[in-house]
Amino acid sequence: MSEAGIVALMQKTEEWITPELNTVFEKNISDDITVKAAMYSLFAGGKRLRPMMMRLTSGMLGLDSSIDPDVKYFAATLEMIHTYSLIHDDLPAMDNDDLRRGKPTCHKVYGEGIATLAGDLLLNSAMERLFSISEKNPGYIFAASAMASNAGLYGMIGGQSIDIASTEKNIPLEKLIELQEKKTGALIEASIVTPYYLSKQMTREQSASDETAIALRKLASHIGLAFQIRDDILDVISDSETLGKSTGKDERDSKATFVTLLGLEGAENRVEAEIASIKDILADFRNKGFDTTDYEILTDYLANRDR
Amino acid sequence: MSEAGIVALMQKTEEWITPELNTVFEKNISDDITVKAAMYSLFAGGKRLRPMMMRLTSGMLGLDSSIDPDVKYFAATLEMIHTYSLIHDDLPAMDNDDLRRGKPTCHKVYGEGIATLAGDLLLNSAMERLFSISEKNPGYIFAASAMASNAGLYGMIGGQSIDIASTEKNIPLEKLIELQEKKTGALIEASIVTPYYLSKQMTREQSASDETAIALRKLASHIGLAFQIRDDILDVISDSETLGKSTGKDERDSKATFVTLLGLEGAENRVEAEIASIKDILADFRNKGFDTTDYEILTDYLANRDR
Repeated sequence: MSEAGIVALMQKTEEWITPELNTVFEKNISDDITVKAAMYSLFAGGKRLRPMMMRLTSGMLGLDSSIDPDVKYFAATLEMIHTYSLIHDDLPAMDNDDLRRGKPTCHKVYGEGIATLAGDLLLNSAMERLFSISEKNPGYIFAASAMASNAGLYGMIGGQSIDIASTEKNIPLEKLIELQEKKTGALIEASIVTPYYLSKQMTREQSASDETAIALRKLASHIGLAFQIRDDILDVISDSETLGKSTGKDERDSKATFVTLLGLEGAENRVEAEIASIKDILADFRNKGFDTTDYEILTDYLANRDR
Repeated sequence: MSEAGIVALMQKTEEWITPELNTVFEKNISDDITVKAAMYSLFAGGKRLRPMMMRLTSGMLGLDSSIDPDVKYFAATLEMIHTYSLIHDDLPAMDNDDLRRGKPTCHKVYGEGIATLAGDLLLNSAMERLFSISEKNPGYIFAASAMASNAGLYGMIGGQSIDIASTEKNIPLEKLIELQEKKTGALIEASIVTPYYLSKQMTREQSASDETAIALRKLASHIGLAFQIRDDILDVISDSETLGKSTGKDERDSKATFVTLLGLEGAENRVEAEIASIKDILADFRNKGFDTTDYEILTDYLANRDR
């Protein structure tokens, strides 16, 4: 894997998204304790993969640079939703994690009450941003609405609900795939498809039949699974220092994972199959004249990442 | 106080809003454990004061009955936001309440993890509803956006954040008023003003200068304070059986309240002053030919309620 390629993409994404993330709360309210807690988690060393994928879609499709500020605005919003979900997931009553991205989790620093409220704040503020930009540009309502749905019962929250209810280690593979497609896949879909929705000011009806939108959602589905299966593998083979979060916790929590259901080799084979599907879809885009270089760098990273 | 009047208003509101609340989650997902927990709290005996106020505004202003389904839709959405805030507030890390509206709180029945997620679900689903109706009717975007703001950092969450950070019993009265205007007042404002926004398909700019909108927001501010100060009084003088929730907890939690800051008599005087302001505003509406009968019944109830 070309380590330099993905590092450069991450660096560019960081430079691109950080100023926007710094503006999500107004300066005059920055000493509010809940805002402090939210900002702590928002800047606790995330890899910014979702903002990166938004940039990759913009780049691949050659979207007009005039919409870049709006893509960035939605990217920061999605990162807020992602961050709230991590804060709540890490709570003692949920996954009970002390360490996230190599740093103490929000509730370890600010206490459970403020961490709960900081999660609520990030979610609510993300939605306020989506309404605010839709007020200014009604052509973005569907993109905003779709992002909210991806975060909800038929997306991330629904996946988390299946997860919390699945106490057995031997749920069927299809159930685990459904769980992960919702829990992590839905926000990845939002990141990959949103720039395209914005560029077309797309409606719900158009999005259902538009070929490019359909291809992007398929791409997202395979990227989500490759990402999650690799995550499950790393939980077994990596150590917490490299990973920046607790390892072996799937085992500890008696959670069904792609490794417990398929074995280590089976899971590795499944990652390879997902990577092959990603490459097929990218080849289609390339044949249509789109530049898939950066998405290929991401694909190599997904296949081989060690953290 | 005419007990019969307020009971009739509550009954009519209950009949009006219950069918709508029954549809907020689709039937095919009703065995999801997080949906069950959310529905448990949504139907745990709330007084539906916010939906009632939406009906009262529609009635007072004589809004066209064709928008009634949309008012109801927003009313159920607001009730979801209110319910999520109660679920999270009741958590052990926040107010640690076992009893709410005379029933065990969500986390006592479903556990803290699912209760946290059920709160997230209600908030996210409420926002999805607001986006969904805005997709169909872009004229509602501002009303939706304003409701989301009322729930956020400059509204309910901001008030809760001040509350959680205020550990001293002697915060200044103005700070307590700010806290309560945000924590409980903001959603009351949303309930009182939203039907009018909907009827006019109002924009943000229009809402800032429209006289009726300004009068409704003032009415909401006084109703919110009358409601909250009476709440603080009841926490001291009532018992948990009558109230359906723990009493004496402000004292236990060393919380500043209108009673700790003003004394019992001072707090009662302040309620009377708020009630007088409400009556002045209602008189203005009456002078303009609007029917304020039902809002007056609510005002009497706010002044004298014992639960």
